[in-house]
Amino acid sequence: MKLKSPLIIVNFKTYLESTGQRALTLAKNAEKAAQESGVTVIVAPQMMDIGRIAEEVDIPIFAQHIDPIKPGNNTGHVLLEAAKEAGAVGTLINHSERQLKLSEIEAIIALTKENGLVSCVCANNPITAAGAAAMRPDIVSFEPPELIGTGIPVSKAKPEVVVNTVMLVRKINLECMVLCGAGISQAEDVAAAVKLGTQGVLVASGIVKAKDQYSIIRDFAEATKILNV
Amino acid sequence: MKLKSPLIIVNFKTYLESTGQRALTLAKNAEKAAQESGVTVIVAPQMMDIGRIAEEVDIPIFAQHIDPIKPGNNTGHVLLEAAKEAGAVGTLINHSERQLKLSEIEAIIALTKENGLVSCVCANNPITAAGAAAMRPDIVSFEPPELIGTGIPVSKAKPEVVVNTVMLVRKINLECMVLCGAGISQAEDVAAAVKLGTQGVLVASGIVKAKDQYSIIRDFAEATKILNV
Amino acid sequence: MKLKSPLIIVNFKTYLESTGQRALTLAKNAEKAAQESGVTVIVAPQMMDIGRIAEEVDIPIFAQHIDPIKPGNNTGHVLLEAAKEAGAVGTLINHSERQLKLSEIEAIIALTKENGLVSCVCANNPITAAGAAAMRPDIVSFEPPELIGTGIPVSKAKPEVVVNTVMLVRKINLECMVLCGAGISQAEDVAAAVKLGTQGVLVASGIVKAKDQYSIIRDFAEATKILNV
Amino acid sequence: MKLKSPLIIVNFKTYLESTGQRALTLAKNAEKAAQESGVTVIVAPQMMDIGRIAEEVDIPIFAQHIDPIKPGNNTGHVLLEAAKEAGAVGTLINHSERQLKLSEIEAIIALTKENGLVSCVCANNPITAAGAAAMRPDIVSFEPPELIGTGIPVSKAKPEVVVNTVMLVRKINLECMVLCGAGISQAEDVAAAVKLGTQGVLVASGIVKAKDQYSIIRDFAEATKILNV
Repeated sequence: MKLKSPLIIVNFKTYLESTGQRALTLAKNAEKAAQESGVTVIVAPQMMDIGRIAEEVDIPIFAQHIDPIKPGNNTGHVLLEAAKEAGAVGTLINHSERQLKLSEIEAIIALTKENGLVSCVCANNPITAAGAAAMRPDIVSFEPPELIGTGIPVSKAKPEVVVNTVMLVRKINLECMVLCGAGISQAEDVAAAVKLGTQGVLVASGIVKAKDQYSIIRDFAEATKILNV
Repeated sequence: MKLKSPLIIVNFKTYLESTGQRALTLAKNAEKAAQESGVTVIVAPQMMDIGRIAEEVDIPIFAQHIDPIKPGNNTGHVLLEAAKEAGAVGTLINHSERQLKLSEIEAIIALTKENGLVSCVCANNPITAAGAAAMRPDIVSFEPPELIGTGIPVSKAKPEVVVNTVMLVRKINLECMVLCGAGISQAEDVAAAVKLGTQGVLVASGIVKAKDQYSIIRDFAEATKILNV
Repeated sequence: MKLKSPLIIVNFKTYLESTGQRALTLAKNAEKAAQESGVTVIVAPQMMDIGRIAEEVDIPIFAQHIDPIKPGNNTGHVLLEAAKEAGAVGTLINHSERQLKLSEIEAIIALTKENGLVSCVCANNPITAAGAAAMRPDIVSFEPPELIGTGIPVSKAKPEVVVNTVMLVRKINLECMVLCGAGISQAEDVAAAVKLGTQGVLVASGIVKAKDQYSIIRDFAEATKILNV
Repeated sequence: MKLKSPLIIVNFKTYLESTGQRALTLAKNAEKAAQESGVTVIVAPQMMDIGRIAEEVDIPIFAQHIDPIKPGNNTGHVLLEAAKEAGAVGTLINHSERQLKLSEIEAIIALTKENGLVSCVCANNPITAAGAAAMRPDIVSFEPPELIGTGIPVSKAKPEVVVNTVMLVRKINLECMVLCGAGISQAEDVAAAVKLGTQGVLVASGIVKAKDQYSIIRDFAEATKILNV
């Protein structure tokens, strides 16, 4: 699968506001905003919610995590093949809340390539972003953990770090997309992220916990167009 | 939820034979065998398959794992509330393929009690089974990892260890059920397990990879009745 | 090795005040306080400091952690045999800052028994303490993580939880010692711990960061005698 | 500290043949071979043995692992400051037997830079070696885990993979040294490694378990000179 940039990934995490029936509602809001704006909006719901969202919503779905395993003896693990059959077209890898070993990240990227899924490796700083980029995922997403969930947007609080990340990644890998995340809650934070050289944002609570999820996603989507104006 | 013993838990693991559409088929076979035998048969499919099985099959569903977390910032984790909304009524905990820290096991047991789910803690030997039993789960399942997937049944290869496990668990906890697993592929292995003092078995490849899953589950279910004959 | 109760274990953690040369000084202070009070005082320094302390100080030494491994291919792990040759006579297991899987705890206890070392399993609440006790270590030490390093002593802030821990452990295991720890910085906290039914305390910053380490250890040691007065 | 290439790192792992008194003997053999050959030979003993080797042997010592921590509340962890005070001048990071998360590797490299230690990150394949190199350690060591301890040398069994690793690392990082390891037990394996573009080897059982450790190290050291002949 080839994704069109700019893009927005909505990470549902494990909020109650994005679990079960409410995950479906959020995905439908994302679908509507994507269709109206023409911008790529991806949803990353919990495992249990992938199947139903895939049935009822026409929007790319990412898993939040998959394990570096082959089918077999792996009780309690997340199998790529199961995520794919349920409807996932890609996966987050190494989110700061689900960090992985270096060799696991590489193994998962390899599995996604074998199976035609999109890989998005998260990184906590510019240097780990460079390390991730060197392993050739489709997307690298930079998220400083100390800003996650704070409402202080990385693109405004640490613009030079975002620029540095883009630069370090680009030195090593000209093909992967670069996103940033953490603290993004306003359309202007999204626009700032794009102006700093990213191809979009990875967002969670800013959308999940919003009163009007649809409007926020719509605003974020429009904001990604800033360079085309 | 209160489960009636004896019981059989079918662990789907991450086999392709028990993923997606084929998970649904296996669950339907388990349902049919349960209804005809009158024996409790529980299925433990992968996360992504819980929702659809819950919709189409009337049989208790366990998660293979849940994480010791509350709703919130936990990308890539398994939230009890999401498993429950999807249809799970219980969960495996600490399977030898998904081992957990002591404090995590206790925290997950506590979450299951708060939320009315059944807890089944797996243990790799009689002493860890005693350790598990001391934390008061609903079920302790003893599985020696070296026999998993071998076809050499724990109930025949190590009967004295099964008896020892039952005894050590009973000294500490008179209420929890005790299961055993690993290598069980014949009805006589199930009967042997029950005669040794267990309340049933935890099985995986013996059923998942069987050509006629229904007949095997049915045979296993009948075999659990050996003490009532 | 058989330890005489009551006892005090001084956990050096990885404070600079208890690293290298300063670890040796602290161990000498502990030795002096032990000799003068006649109370068992154990030191648990960092790995690198065990050998030199063992050479120069006549006091029981515990490792802070060992790994559940046999000699061989285990780069970067802590081998019991190496800790023993360096001079350790026992080890902490599962400290809240170095938590272990259930099966690992059991495997390490088994290794200590095979090799004649003393095992002290830490537990974060009464239920995990019961789980630990069921696996028959020599010592169970209860430390609520939320009080560690706070100066709020568990023996005064949560006396009923200490009593509950002692009771749950005793139901399952009449032989192991029970210690408590977290927040202990005054002799009266130690006396309170002993009055609640413990055989002593596990302490760290209260001693390591004290200006006069010797006097504090001496006071703590005297305080453990409260029931003999 | 600046190391002169080519170099040989002897990983003591947790073999009994390289524990305690025998670790000291091995380190003395390495020292003698280093002095006579003029080649840099580094020893990586267990934590407990660093101090005594540093006192008695004049040869660079690496830790086998350090943790990404600052001094403080970290029971059972390996503190860089403690390893340094004991005598370590560098550390292995992410050995395949002690694998680390991406962010941990980066954090440990940063700690070594702050404290003037040499960092050697191990990688299990060319792509993870590139990922490691992007984070700018002093040394990247490529070791395919499937060959470790087999006696089948990576430099002869997989020469094209060694070349590929060197190439991928060099594209990203022109300054770090590249070593290879796994299965190396003969001087010709060392020579082959150097001819393939590495600056030396990381070896363990081939030396630790040799009857005449000194002669093997001496032979290996001479073999690294092949390009200077």
